[in-house]
Amino acid sequence: MNIPEPYASRVKAVRRSMTRAGIRGLLVTRPENRRYLSGYTARDTQIDESSGRLLVTPGRQYLVTDFRYRTQAEVEARGYEVVMSGPEAARTIGELARRTRLKSLGYEEDLITVKFFEALHRELPDIPIEPAAGLLSDLRLLKDAGEIKKIRRALGLTEKALRETWAFLKPGRTEIEVARFLEEAMVRLGAEGPAFESIVASGPNAALPHAVPTRRKIGSGETIIFDCGARLDGYGADISRTIVLGRPKSWIKTIYRLVRQAQLTAIRGIKPGLTSDRADALARDVIEAAGFGPNFGHALGHGVGMATHEAPALSRFRSTRLEPGMVVTVEPGIYIEGRGGVRLEEMVMVTEKSVRLLNRDRTFYEWPEP
Amino acid sequence: MNIPEPYASRVKAVRRSMTRAGIRGLLVTRPENRRYLSGYTARDTQIDESSGRLLVTPGRQYLVTDFRYRTQAEVEARGYEVVMSGPEAARTIGELARRTRLKSLGYEEDLITVKFFEALHRELPDIPIEPAAGLLSDLRLLKDAGEIKKIRRALGLTEKALRETWAFLKPGRTEIEVARFLEEAMVRLGAEGPAFESIVASGPNAALPHAVPTRRKIGSGETIIFDCGARLDGYGADISRTIVLGRPKSWIKTIYRLVRQAQLTAIRGIKPGLTSDRADALARDVIEAAGFGPNFGHALGHGVGMATHEAPALSRFRSTRLEPGMVVTVEPGIYIEGRGGVRLEEMVMVTEKSVRLLNRDRTFYEWPEP
Repeated sequence: MNIPEPYASRVKAVRRSMTRAGIRGLLVTRPENRRYLSGYTARDTQIDESSGRLLVTPGRQYLVTDFRYRTQAEVEARGYEVVMSGPEAARTIGELARRTRLKSLGYEEDLITVKFFEALHRELPDIPIEPAAGLLSDLRLLKDAGEIKKIRRALGLTEKALRETWAFLKPGRTEIEVARFLEEAMVRLGAEGPAFESIVASGPNAALPHAVPTRRKIGSGETIIFDCGARLDGYGADISRTIVLGRPKSWIKTIYRLVRQAQLTAIRGIKPGLTSDRADALARDVIEAAGFGPNFGHALGHGVGMATHEAPALSRFRSTRLEPGMVVTVEPGIYIEGRGGVRLEEMVMVTEKSVRLLNRDRTFYEWPEP
Repeated sequence: MNIPEPYASRVKAVRRSMTRAGIRGLLVTRPENRRYLSGYTARDTQIDESSGRLLVTPGRQYLVTDFRYRTQAEVEARGYEVVMSGPEAARTIGELARRTRLKSLGYEEDLITVKFFEALHRELPDIPIEPAAGLLSDLRLLKDAGEIKKIRRALGLTEKALRETWAFLKPGRTEIEVARFLEEAMVRLGAEGPAFESIVASGPNAALPHAVPTRRKIGSGETIIFDCGARLDGYGADISRTIVLGRPKSWIKTIYRLVRQAQLTAIRGIKPGLTSDRADALARDVIEAAGFGPNFGHALGHGVGMATHEAPALSRFRSTRLEPGMVVTVEPGIYIEGRGGVRLEEMVMVTEKSVRLLNRDRTFYEWPEP
């Protein structure tokens, strides 16, 4: 049975990368990488429990899974031979590797635990087992037109759900209630679900960049950060909005304008050839010049696609050269401990000359515009 | 600052285990283990991204995290010294280990990736870095009274949410709609959220033991499997119910009765001293004797606590001796490809002589009782 598109082209591309890297077989465990190469949508419910692994060899492709996922694997991973394993998946993979006489095996060192690696090594003591995570993340760096379309649909849906949520929002509702309404709206509008746990952080909670919604009742005059995204067809959106019910205090206006200015500066400055650390600096310089450098403690942005965080990271600590087809968030923030915070996040695609804003709703920034 | 209870006793217990194992320092990355030892509730949003790591030494305890989680770490992990790291957490951990002159370091081999282990090893080339996951999971095997109370509250809440969902359920609603309603009900009733992604699997989808809810419209006369649990105070419930709208076909009645009989046999037979593989056999024998052995492809059950799946596994492939204080699911199932399936899941605590059913709602099995 042949692999259907777009998976056939992607498997072809991964085989080319394997040849270049001198790797004969490739074990693919990360759920996004599996789905990217095969269409298999199962998700892993635990950090250390896998719902399946692809084994790509020069001439064959296997999906090794267990009883629980057999039907799903056979339906979804067309063109892959589905192989059942018991609780010791390393044993089944070892057998396949020996049967196909693999002379080396690549694996995702950033996902595979030490325990699983050692089990693999016991099964295949005579062949090199080599880190190959970069090979797979490189493949997913540049989005094709089909992927951009999916991301834009997820984004449009997220923006609609946010609009509905603001109509629902009023002082006295808890963060959890509002977050649930938002996620419910996403699903009602057609999402598979939220791409990640939505953040609704109000008052002092807005000073925690990765706050989990609490039972805190939202009040007037305080910052409320929404950070959320719908997942649709396997692709996620990721945007942040900060709003205030009632009249914002002057410190809020100050940092809001500054964050927006930093964001616009970055969006206007990002282009192919720029490195990711310099992209980060575009926004950071604006915030640092105003004296809020220590209050912007995270990176400017990150790639988004099948995973909510993927390469490239727009960070001081990375210098990936940006290329047309990369999709990244631009999300500066300023956080004032005990009081609140502002984060604004858009998604852009790097184009031949600059970037294209992928959001559909351009009406949000009526107030306050820097 | 002192560590408050129950964390102080747990840290004391982990230090005793470390001494017995000859490990001087212990690195704790698994979110449940961190929370168990410190009260730090942050969750990891990605498989390979950590929101913090504990380092327990003979005399000190640290929580190494980054800017995003600083406030949360300081508020929650009382008695821990919160240490900020940059993107290279291994470096910060290495510095702490050198500063406290650690002579060995234990780590969770079933969670730590090869990449992170190698970064640690580069930082600490002169000391042994040893697998210690079992040491931590052993601590969490036996639940104390406070934990049992939390699990029972999560269970009661789950059962209430399920009752509401059945009132909402009718032919024509999609699995996703029903799953969302269920999770919304959990939150409305006071849960932190679902402990895991709820399964609502109808018709042929019920033949997939780990189905994800789809847009399929639920019909009459087919099996609908619910597998869900609320999370409350960090502890999760996990139960499964199979129901039919309208009149069940006779093949459904047959397998339903068989699954229920297998489940009751196991619940009645589990007791301290029995090994987990023999617990599995109690139910499996009933199903195999009726000729449905190949249709029961998963284990009978698993431990539940802060994690949805934790030790002990009630599986053919494990022989853990059951002890009073262990909490496990009992969840036999029969799956008929293309048609549907039945899974029934309860949670029990092993007591001094037998087991105690932890569910609160005893009215479910009015129909059909074997």
